Amino acid sequence: MDGQKRIAIQGVAGAFHEVAARRFFGENISVEECDTFRILSRKLHNGEVDFALMAIENTIAGTLMPNYSLVSEFGLKIVGEVYLHIEMQLMALPGVQLEQVQFVHSHPIAIAQCREYLDTLQNVTVVEKNDTAESAQNIIKQNFKNVAAIAGAQAAQLYGLNVIVPNIHTNKQNFTRFFVLSREEKIVENANKTSLCFEIEHRSGSLAEVLMLFAINGLNLTKIQSVPILGKPYQYNFFIDLEWNDIALYRSVMKRFSEKVRSYTLLGEYERKSLHLVA
Amino acid sequence: MDGQKRIAIQGVAGAFHEVAARRFFGENISVEECDTFRILSRKLHNGEVDFALMAIENTIAGTLMPNYSLVSEFGLKIVGEVYLHIEMQLMALPGVQLEQVQFVHSHPIAIAQCREYLDTLQNVTVVEKNDTAESAQNIIKQNFKNVAAIAGAQAAQLYGLNVIVPNIHTNKQNFTRFFVLSREEKIVENANKTSLCFEIEHRSGSLAEVLMLFAINGLNLTKIQSVPILGKPYQYNFFIDLEWNDIALYRSVMKRFSEKVRSYTLLGEYERKSLHLVA
Repeated sequence: MDGQKRIAIQGVAGAFHEVAARRFFGENISVEECDTFRILSRKLHNGEVDFALMAIENTIAGTLMPNYSLVSEFGLKIVGEVYLHIEMQLMALPGVQLEQVQFVHSHPIAIAQCREYLDTLQNVTVVEKNDTAESAQNIIKQNFKNVAAIAGAQAAQLYGLNVIVPNIHTNKQNFTRFFVLSREEKIVENANKTSLCFEIEHRSGSLAEVLMLFAINGLNLTKIQSVPILGKPYQYNFFIDLEWNDIALYRSVMKRFSEKVRSYTLLGEYERKSLHLVA
Repeated sequence: MDGQKRIAIQGVAGAFHEVAARRFFGENISVEECDTFRILSRKLHNGEVDFALMAIENTIAGTLMPNYSLVSEFGLKIVGEVYLHIEMQLMALPGVQLEQVQFVHSHPIAIAQCREYLDTLQNVTVVEKNDTAESAQNIIKQNFKNVAAIAGAQAAQLYGLNVIVPNIHTNKQNFTRFFVLSREEKIVENANKTSLCFEIEHRSGSLAEVLMLFAINGLNLTKIQSVPILGKPYQYNFFIDLEWNDIALYRSVMKRFSEKVRSYTLLGEYERKSLHLVA
């Protein structure tokens, strides 16, 4: 494969995961299509690909907690992130008019993102499918003349469909954040962001103490999620993202952090990206 | 309706939402089936029902953030909560054997909860449907001899299906938490739990300060989620749950809290329930 990196994506070519992969790695990659996030995680774990792109949060669904579980289960490491503006297009076979459309196919999240527009359509049945780009691909494969797909512009271009109604997403500031995952820990140059998961003592104030440790040292908390621990009522894992600039200070804070918590898992140290810069 | 409370549920009779409704209100209710959470929220908002049950978090997907958005959008109030152990059954028409099953129908979350079992089946196509109980109901309606549904035991009983493989959920400590929603704020007797959403000043330590205020006064934080605010990079809304015992102390802490945050919305004050007591 003449040095091309092999990148696993969820969905088929033309999916937003592919756009995210090219945003991060550039054009010289080969893309491995995966039906599910579990298959994607397994392929990366088995060394069948070099990296994987995995959606981790979006404007509609919030954090995709099952994906955090897969990262843990397969011992994957976060080595980067990508934020993508998500714009949704309604697309059909060339020549097909909106009036001919009886079915709209797409992924449930994409459908939710376009709910307001879909509610304006009469006599159209919305069908949930596995993937946005695959819904587009299927229209070509099956020569569906009464089906439109909701997917990104890149899918219309790749599969030769016509965008019949552009930008049908409700929220114009829609975004999806992706993790770039590796099988093994890698030293990322210019790392300035950390994702980690921790468990604390079950007593009042222990979370506030940990957050205060970060705060007084200028580490910026950009995400926090509590997740109940199964079988331990009233106990929680916390998933957080931290941004930092001074690596020596960060290391010394992490040392004190490790003494304050019951246990923790470093999910990855990587270079932060922002939505408004990449979009 | 001779004094029966009208309760909106997501899904059809036999859905886990109905089980949750009966757990909270008892048997003397009439149930209004809603296809989507949006329809359910609208019916409650329009006064077509007295209360609504809405799933808000589960073991697989974590918090259902779109549902928090609906609570805000329709100005609904949380007046109670229900925790349900979720056990999944594979069910089919009486007389149908597992070997005859070619398709399994269910809701995507239920499918995810049974993934390990489903991976052991050969030559079976899994099809995502809108609702667990509706998948069961459809087998009867359509007389499907080659379809099994994943749903709760109550759906098998209601629709006269046979459980052909019991308890196929992977995680035996599966639970779903539901909000009991009302159109208007109600004074709940014995309230000792609060759900709220707030925005803080964008500076290091402001979240830790708020959490410390709760902690030093013995208010127990049982949930925290950060959600990025659209159009305000690096700013977040925090959704939290707090448990408390002394109402006078709680009110005085809330007063100081309101002075520390930029803005907040009280989603509801209600009586806490626990998983191990109700199950």
